[in-house]
Amino acid sequence: MATQREPVDIGDIVAAQERLQGYAVRTPLVESARINDMAGRRVLIKPECLQRTGSFKFRGAWNRISQLDDETAARGVVAYSSGNHAQGVAAAAALRGAPAVIVMPADTPEVKKANTRWLGAEVIEYDRASGDRAAIAAEIAGKRGAVIVPPFDDADVIAGQGTVGLEIAEDVERMGVQADAVVVPAGGGGLIAGVSVAVGARLGPVKVYSAEPEGFDDHARSLASGQRVSNQRLSGSICDALLSPEPGELTFAITCKRLAGGLVVSDAEAGHAMAAAFSHLKLVAEPGGAVALAAVLEGRLEGRGPVVVVVSGGNVDADLYRKLLQR
Amino acid sequence: MATQREPVDIGDIVAAQERLQGYAVRTPLVESARINDMAGRRVLIKPECLQRTGSFKFRGAWNRISQLDDETAARGVVAYSSGNHAQGVAAAAALRGAPAVIVMPADTPEVKKANTRWLGAEVIEYDRASGDRAAIAAEIAGKRGAVIVPPFDDADVIAGQGTVGLEIAEDVERMGVQADAVVVPAGGGGLIAGVSVAVGARLGPVKVYSAEPEGFDDHARSLASGQRVSNQRLSGSICDALLSPEPGELTFAITCKRLAGGLVVSDAEAGHAMAAAFSHLKLVAEPGGAVALAAVLEGRLEGRGPVVVVVSGGNVDADLYRKLLQR
Repeated sequence: MATQREPVDIGDIVAAQERLQGYAVRTPLVESARINDMAGRRVLIKPECLQRTGSFKFRGAWNRISQLDDETAARGVVAYSSGNHAQGVAAAAALRGAPAVIVMPADTPEVKKANTRWLGAEVIEYDRASGDRAAIAAEIAGKRGAVIVPPFDDADVIAGQGTVGLEIAEDVERMGVQADAVVVPAGGGGLIAGVSVAVGARLGPVKVYSAEPEGFDDHARSLASGQRVSNQRLSGSICDALLSPEPGELTFAITCKRLAGGLVVSDAEAGHAMAAAFSHLKLVAEPGGAVALAAVLEGRLEGRGPVVVVVSGGNVDADLYRKLLQR
Repeated sequence: MATQREPVDIGDIVAAQERLQGYAVRTPLVESARINDMAGRRVLIKPECLQRTGSFKFRGAWNRISQLDDETAARGVVAYSSGNHAQGVAAAAALRGAPAVIVMPADTPEVKKANTRWLGAEVIEYDRASGDRAAIAAEIAGKRGAVIVPPFDDADVIAGQGTVGLEIAEDVERMGVQADAVVVPAGGGGLIAGVSVAVGARLGPVKVYSAEPEGFDDHARSLASGQRVSNQRLSGSICDALLSPEPGELTFAITCKRLAGGLVVSDAEAGHAMAAAFSHLKLVAEPGGAVALAAVLEGRLEGRGPVVVVVSGGNVDADLYRKLLQR
């Protein structure tokens, strides 16, 4: 009996890494003695807030869009996104010379909308509670003959995000660190799916955990129950990057077999982690980008061994940031 | 006639890089399309705020302190510092198992004092206007038989800071970028002296410029006049890391021959650069750490070619940071 091939394998991620060479920032692992002390263990931070466009999303977008042929690229790309994928697609499309239309919730942080427009994309807003963003995007794509770049449920996008995991594996091996776990923020699950394939292939038995905000813990509950379950709410957390209603079909086909479990933090805990990243790492993290760090700082993960934490983005409005630093 | 050997050469910096391997963060070069657009040229950022202890200072401190023999280390180290060198020495001493005493101005930002104490050092405060920090440090060192680790005027310290320049050279070569200039914040000049030796050896004709706050432009004026001149004031800028009264003797022996000139920015411009680093780089920069970025954003440097900018530190109190983001 033949083993069924996974939607994304390590070869896809290595190929993505080659495409990203010279386009994406090769982010380092950074560390703070203060953070280690607060967490009671060694914490290596993968700061994807330093990535082009301020989040990991450029990786997947570029891996997908750089492969379009010229004729297809000329018709353009369409994406729906809570903001970070929007910027990643806008930047990748601009580099590829492709027009981009992005469908975004009206309540997206201003910094994300402004940057997406600045990068040359056309932004179409919709109401997060009542609109169907996938349907809106599909209609636009149909009219223009444009390609939809999905935010997570796409093999090329997952492989691109997986380069985060490949870099983590390269760096912990070089440093001679035996990591117990890798903790990754999860929205639709593209990043954590790709990371789990990469570290599974390169680091063997390391455990991978999702981190999510309270009320939007669809990965934690889906992993526990073995099937995709949805969140009851569609909005209501400061972690705007992580409000996908449920894990993706493709991403969950990967993560259900590979993840050790899901960790959950409150909005306040995410805010504290942002303040810790400011004080001790000199990194600007956005709320959704800080949930994995929050989970480790709050002791949600058992054990005392070294862990790797992905800070997945830093696109936060200054007003909210100032408020969170004041607490 | 034999050429006189410079106080620090590229061999010293390569040796320092080997000592720092596994101890210092190998910081990347990061970039933002928005920053490039604002500056009207490509700007590659070397974010030393991500370095251990939040500034480049750990590099020089570790290069010096890691070479102490056990008996000397046991008697301890003494340093005087406006805050970043304090933390670098405290961290390096703790790693080496050496007790550390740090003499700091009373008006140092709280974050710097608190971190220095947290790292295990004893902090002795003095009045910046009336006290003589070098004399206080010398007295303590004499009593304890401890070694003074100077903040900049020391060949090992300069060589350690020079590893910033070596990494810059490695990265721009790997990226295939021909940089016009490297712009570096200057206080006593240890960082810029080391960087100028490293990039001079590895990148040839690239120009190196100091960046300083108004009223504390001792490098700019010293370079223009060909001799070391002092600042009139000892305090009164938010750029607390850059208030050294004049260039060091050893550092100026290097920089007077190697630098292309000095750039000057106002405190407000440094604040704007900090806000730009927040919004577009997701980096927390301190005022003094942001002056080179400010100089480039304000167009103080002629030309349109690519430049490398060192963001030298990120140790800023949350209250000041919040105020600067509000503007």
